[in-house]
Amino acid sequence: MLNASYKDMLSKKSVIRELSEFANKRGEEIGYENVFDYSLGNPSVPAPEKFTKALINILETKDPMEIHGYSPSLGIPSVKEAVAESLNERFGMNYEGKHIFMTSAAAGAIAHALRAVTEPGDEVIIFAPYFPEYIPYITGAGCKVRVVPANTEDFQINFEEFEKLLTPSVKAVLVNTPNNPTGVVYSTATIKKLSSLLKEKSHEFGFNIYLISDEPYREIVFGGVESPYVSAYYDYSISCYSYSKSLSLPGERIGYIAVNPANPDAATIVNMCGQISRGTGHNCPSSLMQYGITEVLYETSDLSVYEKNMNILYDELVRLGFTVVKPGGTFYIFPKALEDDAVAFCKKALKYDLVLVPADSFACPGYFRMAYCIDTEKVERSIEALRTFVKSEYPAK
Amino acid sequence: MLNASYKDMLSKKSVIRELSEFANKRGEEIGYENVFDYSLGNPSVPAPEKFTKALINILETKDPMEIHGYSPSLGIPSVKEAVAESLNERFGMNYEGKHIFMTSAAAGAIAHALRAVTEPGDEVIIFAPYFPEYIPYITGAGCKVRVVPANTEDFQINFEEFEKLLTPSVKAVLVNTPNNPTGVVYSTATIKKLSSLLKEKSHEFGFNIYLISDEPYREIVFGGVESPYVSAYYDYSISCYSYSKSLSLPGERIGYIAVNPANPDAATIVNMCGQISRGTGHNCPSSLMQYGITEVLYETSDLSVYEKNMNILYDELVRLGFTVVKPGGTFYIFPKALEDDAVAFCKKALKYDLVLVPADSFACPGYFRMAYCIDTEKVERSIEALRTFVKSEYPAK
Repeated sequence: MLNASYKDMLSKKSVIRELSEFANKRGEEIGYENVFDYSLGNPSVPAPEKFTKALINILETKDPMEIHGYSPSLGIPSVKEAVAESLNERFGMNYEGKHIFMTSAAAGAIAHALRAVTEPGDEVIIFAPYFPEYIPYITGAGCKVRVVPANTEDFQINFEEFEKLLTPSVKAVLVNTPNNPTGVVYSTATIKKLSSLLKEKSHEFGFNIYLISDEPYREIVFGGVESPYVSAYYDYSISCYSYSKSLSLPGERIGYIAVNPANPDAATIVNMCGQISRGTGHNCPSSLMQYGITEVLYETSDLSVYEKNMNILYDELVRLGFTVVKPGGTFYIFPKALEDDAVAFCKKALKYDLVLVPADSFACPGYFRMAYCIDTEKVERSIEALRTFVKSEYPAK
Repeated sequence: MLNASYKDMLSKKSVIRELSEFANKRGEEIGYENVFDYSLGNPSVPAPEKFTKALINILETKDPMEIHGYSPSLGIPSVKEAVAESLNERFGMNYEGKHIFMTSAAAGAIAHALRAVTEPGDEVIIFAPYFPEYIPYITGAGCKVRVVPANTEDFQINFEEFEKLLTPSVKAVLVNTPNNPTGVVYSTATIKKLSSLLKEKSHEFGFNIYLISDEPYREIVFGGVESPYVSAYYDYSISCYSYSKSLSLPGERIGYIAVNPANPDAATIVNMCGQISRGTGHNCPSSLMQYGITEVLYETSDLSVYEKNMNILYDELVRLGFTVVKPGGTFYIFPKALEDDAVAFCKKALKYDLVLVPADSFACPGYFRMAYCIDTEKVERSIEALRTFVKSEYPAK
């Protein structure tokens, strides 16, 4: 008999999937280059050439038994040590290999982190607008989702609402900075206030609330923007990283968990992750990829295109009268729609071959997301469509 | 707060881990080449050269955006189609791409298959002796494990005991042929009898009991042994495959689920697997590996060494008076210990630098497993140690 809940999930419509299907169909009709598809967060710049060369070199010179052999379930020790060292150098931390658990990208990292520090039935807090996959990550660990409403002023944390939800049932808080979908980077003041509130509540409740920090966009930060390393501000923090965006490797499914060494249980949590994997059937990312990323720990793809695209879009959106917070990083921008119903707004945009994502599924109705990880030339061409769309559909603006 | 059950798992001693630690320590003392380590099921032959060349060729000639880009969560369509076709050619099946779900090797395959066809609380039947990781796979899906006692006569299925356990609470049956740890291949008669019993009980219970077939050793079958393709005999079957053993790629974590197209729900099950991944944080194997294995779907590593090693060991074990069923495949052999307590037996063997695994953790006390995926030269050298061990410790034999 088929599992009823997984079967039910199939019948739920995904707005992003529908939009993507539209974009593909429309692309077949008028040429994909003429569809301004801002729906998908797929990196638009290639992996660094150094990465490709490193993989080829490993394949040409190393013993296949070593390259493709079982890696220990916590990750290859030399890889874990190199990852720890690179974090220490960049963020002044004291990680050792034993604090690192190699994962199947950020999805795997968050899934493990959540299971390690919660029991089924516990509550986990997230902040609207949020990446929709947080819901299955949290419910998959058997936990309940609690959502702090958006602070649409600047998309920093809405502390008043956060504190209301921070009861002793909450065992973990999940943050994402630089943020998908807003593009906003949490300020040092935000992180400090968050840390101090968690410390205070942990003391009051008699246990440590965990801070799980989802950081796939950590390296995509725009000029002049300060992006604090979350774990430097709170001892009971678990940093979840993915190489999907910084190295443009989303298909390779590689990332890690770094557990704050200031936590006396840090190494235990990493060891527990090895046990968690046994039940979920996820055992380590590809061994070749583990060796590969070790050669480019201080590299990124050429990420400058994202800032360029952001500036073009931001300036035009402001000119057109949109309410929008300027992104500090990522490849997303999150303007307010020109009517209350963002779904209707995005539907109208399709007539102009503009594929925008209404933020209802990010728990922030009335807003929409544009993923500008596309060629700059296309962003430039889309401006005319954007102007026509606004002028024709919202002439009062 | 740390999750209590995962933390508890850490304190449980693993016999195999302890043995492996002994082997490593002893190796440092007397040289690893002098430790006859039969404890680990790690392939001892390299991946085919064609695979290495295929990977290099992909890296040198293809667009990195394509190679490393997000693959759809069910797997890359062209890869799924190629896998389906290769199964159809070899086993006379009618799979299409939509019946294939790419997984993080057999562990990922079984974890998904179990979640797709059970509800938490359901029972899943396995057969002793079994691969110990079946327990976390099944309990990880929230199900209860029911174990059919071993048929130590020939390690085919103990049907009498199986039928006793086959109640309406059982939603899935998990088989593994060629088998770890026995090395035995289920005969066509066994598979037919299994299929017919499942059909009968499915009819009686009013729902289809699923047969999940774990097949990582499918290509390691010795001369003259017939190895039926399980799914050809039962419509409600899910074949779980891994390239870990046949292509010596255990670290790359790549395999698939193939759902029998005779089942009207086959494509639905594959789609459900995509939903299951969302909750477990496992999304697809490496995209490069998906492209890579597609180039070698009809290849294997040079697997002949395993049969050679098996023959040397089997002949000697028989000569020394062991009760042992001749393996039909895999790289395992499963003799009866020379005393009732196989743990004590294996402990004594360590004095002779022979690392053998007592089968208590495989739910078959009194037996032990030898994983002969080591160099033939080493197998030959181990014979003297084996003789001395038996003569000194069990002189009556």
